[in-house]
Parts: sequence; C-alpha cells; structure tokens
Amino acid sequence: MAASRQGELPLGRLEAFSDGVFAIAITLLVLELGVGAGAEEHMLESLLHEWPAYLAYITSFLTIGVIWLQHSSITGALRSADGTLYRLNLLVLLLASLLPFPTKLLSEVIGDRDPERVVAVFYGLLLLALALALTAFVRYAAEHRELVKDEVEAEAVEAALVHQPSFLLYGVGIGVSLLLPTIGIALYLATALYLGIPGRTIRRLLQRR
Amino acid sequence: MAASRQGELPLGRLEAFSDGVFAIAITLLVLELGVGAGAEEHMLESLLHEWPAYLAYITSFLTIGVIWLQHSSITGALRSADGTLYRLNLLVLLLASLLPFPTKLLSEVIGDRDPERVVAVFYGLLLLALALALTAFVRYAAEHRELVKDEVEAEAVEAALVHQPSFLLYGVGIGVSLLLPTIGIALYLATALYLGIPGRTIRRLLQRR
Amino acid sequence: MAASRQGELPLGRLEAFSDGVFAIAITLLVLELGVGAGAEEHMLESLLHEWPAYLAYITSFLTIGVIWLQHSSITGALRSADGTLYRLNLLVLLLASLLPFPTKLLSEVIGDRDPERVVAVFYGLLLLALALALTAFVRYAAEHRELVKDEVEAEAVEAALVHQPSFLLYGVGIGVSLLLPTIGIALYLATALYLGIPGRTIRRLLQRR
Amino acid sequence: MAASRQGELPLGRLEAFSDGVFAIAITLLVLELGVGAGAEEHMLESLLHEWPAYLAYITSFLTIGVIWLQHSSITGALRSADGTLYRLNLLVLLLASLLPFPTKLLSEVIGDRDPERVVAVFYGLLLLALALALTAFVRYAAEHRELVKDEVEAEAVEAALVHQPSFLLYGVGIGVSLLLPTIGIALYLATALYLGIPGRTIRRLLQRR
Repeated sequence: MAASRQGELPLGRLEAFSDGVFAIAITLLVLELGVGAGAEEHMLESLLHEWPAYLAYITSFLTIGVIWLQHSSITGALRSADGTLYRLNLLVLLLASLLPFPTKLLSEVIGDRDPERVVAVFYGLLLLALALALTAFVRYAAEHRELVKDEVEAEAVEAALVHQPSFLLYGVGIGVSLLLPTIGIALYLATALYLGIPGRTIRRLLQRR
Repeated sequence: MAASRQGELPLGRLEAFSDGVFAIAITLLVLELGVGAGAEEHMLESLLHEWPAYLAYITSFLTIGVIWLQHSSITGALRSADGTLYRLNLLVLLLASLLPFPTKLLSEVIGDRDPERVVAVFYGLLLLALALALTAFVRYAAEHRELVKDEVEAEAVEAALVHQPSFLLYGVGIGVSLLLPTIGIALYLATALYLGIPGRTIRRLLQRR
Repeated sequence: MAASRQGELPLGRLEAFSDGVFAIAITLLVLELGVGAGAEEHMLESLLHEWPAYLAYITSFLTIGVIWLQHSSITGALRSADGTLYRLNLLVLLLASLLPFPTKLLSEVIGDRDPERVVAVFYGLLLLALALALTAFVRYAAEHRELVKDEVEAEAVEAALVHQPSFLLYGVGIGVSLLLPTIGIALYLATALYLGIPGRTIRRLLQRR
Repeated sequence: MAASRQGELPLGRLEAFSDGVFAIAITLLVLELGVGAGAEEHMLESLLHEWPAYLAYITSFLTIGVIWLQHSSITGALRSADGTLYRLNLLVLLLASLLPFPTKLLSEVIGDRDPERVVAVFYGLLLLALALALTAFVRYAAEHRELVKDEVEAEAVEAALVHQPSFLLYGVGIGVSLLLPTIGIALYLATALYLGIPGRTIRRLLQRR
C-alpha cells in the first residue's frame, strides 16, 4: 500500500541495500590493516609503528558509522521513496564505499610527507563529497512532503535544511592536510566524533522534524 | 500465507539474499583500486594515471546499482516466488557477482591496447549476459500471473516483455571495444546511465505493469 | 509471541545472519579469480588457461547457492528456533564460509597433478561435511515438532529424514579426486546441479513436509 | 509506533546493520587462510603445517558467532533503542570487525615464538575489550527499562548485570599468552566454547531477564 502511489518505490529494499553496503564498507576497512614483510623480528614496534593506519581506520570506521546513523534517522522519518531518492541514495553509497580506497593509501604512505599530503587531501575531498551527497539526500526527502511520514512535523522538515557545519570542518581539514596531513586526518576524525554527538545529528534529523 | 500454495517459495529470503549479493559485489569493487608499488614518489600523478581504473569502477558500480534498481522494482511487483524464479535469480546473481573480475583485469592492463581489447570484450559479454539473465527473470515472472500481485495490471505485464534496447547498446559497445577498448567501456557506462534514467527502467518495469 | 516460549529464539535474526554469510561467501569467491603476473602479453590465452579456476568458481558458487536454497526452504517450514538449532546453523555457516579457501587453492595449483589431488580431496571432504551439517540441521528441526509450523504435516517431517544421496555422490567424487582431480571437481559440480533440480531439494524439503 | 517516543530509534536498522557487520567479519576470516608460495611441492604437509592459522580461524569464527548469539538474544529482549545504545552498538561492531586483523597476524607468525607472544596478547586484549563493550551494551539496555519489552521481568534485567566470568578467562588467556602463545589462543577458543554452551549465554541473557 505504501508503495502503490504513482512513482513511489518501497523503502524497505533501499534500507536493506544501504545497510548492506555500509556494513560491508565498514568491515572491509580491516583488510588493509597489517604489518610489512619482515616485521616478525620486532612485532611490537612494527604494530606500534602503524599508528597512522589505525588513525585512518578509526576515522573511516566512525565516519561510515555516523553516516549510517544519519541515514538510519532520515529513512526512519520517511514513509516511502521515489526514483530520484533511490538515485541520490546510490550516490551516497558510491562515495561511502570508496572510503576504503584512501584509507588503504594512507596506510601505504606512512611517514612519507609528500604523498601523505596528496592522499589526505583526496580523503578530505571524498569526505566532503559524501557530506554533500547526504545533504542532497536529506533535502530532497524534506522537500517532497509526500515521502515523509504524516506524524513528522512540517517545520521540522525545514529545520533539517540548516547548513551542516561539517562542510566547514572538512574544508578546514583539507586546508590543514596540505601542510600537516596527520593533523588534517585528526580533524576528519574530530568531525566524525562531533557529528556523532547524540544531540547533534540524530535528534536534529529525526526528532525535530 | 503468501507462500502456502503448492510450489511457492517466500519472496523475502530471495530479496534479502539478492540485496546481500548486490551490496557485496558493489562494495568489493573498491578493493581493486590502488596505485602500483613505488607510486609514493609521484602520488598525484600515480592517482591520476589510474583514471581508466576509475572509469571501470564507476561503470561496474552504476551497472550493479541499476541492476539492483530493476531487480528491486521487479520483485516489488511480485506476490510470491517459485523454484524456477529462485534459480533464474541465482543466475542473475552469479553474473552480477562476476563483474569485479573484469573490473580488476581492466585496472591491470591500463594503457596496453591488446589485452585491453580482450578484457573490454569479455566485460561487455558479461554485461550482455547479465542483461539477458535479468530479462529472463522478468519474463518468467510476467508469464506466471500467480506470482504477480493482483493489483498489477495484466497489460502492464505484457509491456514488460518489450525487447530491451540495452542489448543493442551492449552489442555496439562490444564491437567498438574490439578496436577502441576505452571508448567501448565508456559506452557500457553510457548504457548504465541510460538504464538509470527514471522514466525508462523503474517506471516501465513497475508502474506500467 | 513466536519467541516467547521457554528456550525459543527468534527465527528472523537466524535467517538474516545466514543470508548475510551465504551472500558474502558466494560473492567473495570472485576475489580469487585473476590471471598471473605477465599475462598481459597473451591475455586471451591467459584467461582461457584459467578454466579450472572457473570450474572451481562455478562449483563453489552453485554449491553455496543450492545450500542457501535448501536452508531457505527449511527455515520457511519452521515456526521458531532454539539454542541448539542456532548452534547447528553456526556449524553450517562455518563450513559454507570455508569454501572460498579450497576454491582459491585449486586456482593456485592448476595443472600440477599432485597438489591438485590433495586440494580436490580436501574440497570434497569440506563439501561432504557441509552436507552432513545441513542434514543434522534439518533432522534436529524435524525431530522437534514445536519448532515446525503447525500447517506442515507430520509425515512430511519424517520424509525429510530420508538419507540424502548427495553423501554418496560426494564420496564417489572424493574417491575419483584421488586419481583424477579435475573429474572429481566436475562430479562435485554435477552434485550441486543435481541438488538444484527443482523436484528434488526444494519440493521434498518444503512441500512434502 | 515503537520508535515514536522522544529520543527513541528503530531497533530494526540496528539489528540489520549489526547482522551485516557480524556476517561480514565472520566470513572475511577465510580470506587470510592460504599456503605460502612454493607450497605446491608438498601440499599436504603445507596444509597441515598451517594448523595454528586454523586454530586462530576457528577461535575468531566461534567468538564472533557467540557474540552474535548474545547480541541476538539481547536485542530480542528489547522493545526499542536510543542514541546511546546505537553508539555502544557501534563500539561492539568496531571491536568485532577488528578481529580479522590479529587472526591474520597470527597466521603470519606461525612457529616464531616472540612475535606470536605479542600478537596473542594483542588478540586477547581485543577479545577482552569486545566482552567489556558487549557488557556495557547489555548493562545500558538493562538499566533503561523503557527500552526493554514489557513482558521481560524486572529481576531478570538485574540478573543480566552479574559479572561475566569471560573477563577472568580472557585475563588468564592473556597471561598465559605471554609465555605460551599457542596455549593462550587455545584458552580463548575454550572461552568461546564455554560462552556458547546453551545454558550460559542465551538462557541467562534472554530468558532469565
């Protein structure tokens, strides 16, 4: 019934497919962790030496986790989906599933300043593009009242349109990465932690709507 | 109740398993992205040099995404499944889950014309086989009225049987790949984008039925 | 309500988790496909040379697919699960998720008769263990009437206990693999195809119960 | 309706995402299994020589399986989730999805006592952290009565707060690993088996609540 109007698509498959992609992307990150060949001699030092790889791992893990939290809140406020929302969702998934790529690159260029800069900027641009795609996803849903559950208030839908400060944070992180890539990645991590604070993302996106 | 008639199988597991395979295949594609050993020296150039790998990545991602969109629309119009539909579905999943293989090969033969031709033709044949398998899946469902929801109109089921132009597009792409493999892959990408246009796939497969 | 009796567990999570593991195992198989280093020179020959790897791929894919079909039929006839069924299910998943291991080994020892024998026998033993574990899973469910849906007939539950001929087929395949590993693997494939014939597995397991 | 109160989030997405991550982590473990280069000569010996890798594999598989069993039982007793439970769940998933990392390391340092010690201790610390995170997840749920189903008794919620003996077992395992890493890992496996005994985890967590 929910999917019987003209142009509407079931929300359940969109959620199931998205859960799958987020879960796989977040779990694939572990495949890139490891120590170099010949590390057996000094295993403890080798493991500790890889700390920038762990920093990149935890940053990507928390970013995908927070994106999933937001995605979960958004679709929880929806009643149905349409073709355009399906496509915007595919764009979000495309960018999220690309995150293991710069995460792997970062673990490969540890301690090598110049390539670290390139990879950290690339990583930041991908994070920024992901935040923009998720915002486009939210905006499209908020602007199409017929996709939103009846009990979700109209002014709350407007509130979700407020410009996300994560854009600014990612912008600063990208700028810093040009000079100090490790600090830049720490800023990306801080952004994920900030977005993960309960009062900010979940409540604003779900309850206030 | 829906699965209680003779020979019927539940649709939910078919959808859940398919969502899983599509989600994994689409996310595994990222594992093949990377830069060659010794790329640390000129990271930016190395990253940009990999553009044919990104072209193959985006083509495979969008193709699996569009196949999932179509699959989602088709099963959304169904009421139940039977053993043959389960098997046709396994064939679709087999071909879809093979896509990471030529995608990886393409990223390995970048700039080497002769192997590029072989791989691009192999890639196109796999895409064509996938389109054919999905069509067989749709046709079988459309020809078995007891599997389709009652509210889906009979003439719409017939309309879904119209020959898909994607066959022709893939055929042209395969032919072009014999001479100009990169252009051939761009044609595969164009086909995925064309199939992804809202009015074409989703509406025709779901609403008009 | 379905899970409220003493010792019962919800069936939904068991199905969702199993769908996930089967879907991932079946999709991971593609990661092992590839051509050796230096294959760029003669890509077509290199691709064709890998045919035993494709044979192993298709055998593992179809085996996991058929196991999933059977699993899907079995849980479709159930009303609930208990702790022992959860554990037997974990055993089935353990063995199914191991299949990519001998599949990878087979693609590595192509054309080398002695290691092929070892790997083909190991592969067959794993397939046999998987068939035994699935049978234990079915038997346990059939012997615990409170786990089976009321509308599934009692004599049908007994019928599901008939010894599966797949044990014999796998036994023959293992024996043949000791001498002719490639023929042995072809027998494993034939067994998967045989188990996949509609009238055999699905109907016997689901409808006749 | 279940998610309509202030601050509540749907439980379904949390379960689906967790099932996905557990299923992927448990299935990715197989990717690390393999024999070294040049093993073709003595395939049987090479396969048998890898037994510590199989020990690590089965330990990680059963640990994730038991964690999933417990997680499944816990969420089966819940009525809803909130933002904090979502975040504690992400922590459980983060630690569970890291398990393939020490599992891979263990298979790489086979027979090399010093690095084995480091990796076995690291593995044990991760298992301990995972048990602590799962306990925090259970405690938080048990202390927030509004998240628990009405029919689950109050004293049972208290009973779930009893200190888990797995902490002690993991502590002993870590200590033993400092001297005899293989015995330490066998203790981790024994802990997973102990936790998997029906009467212990499932019944205590779900029924007695």
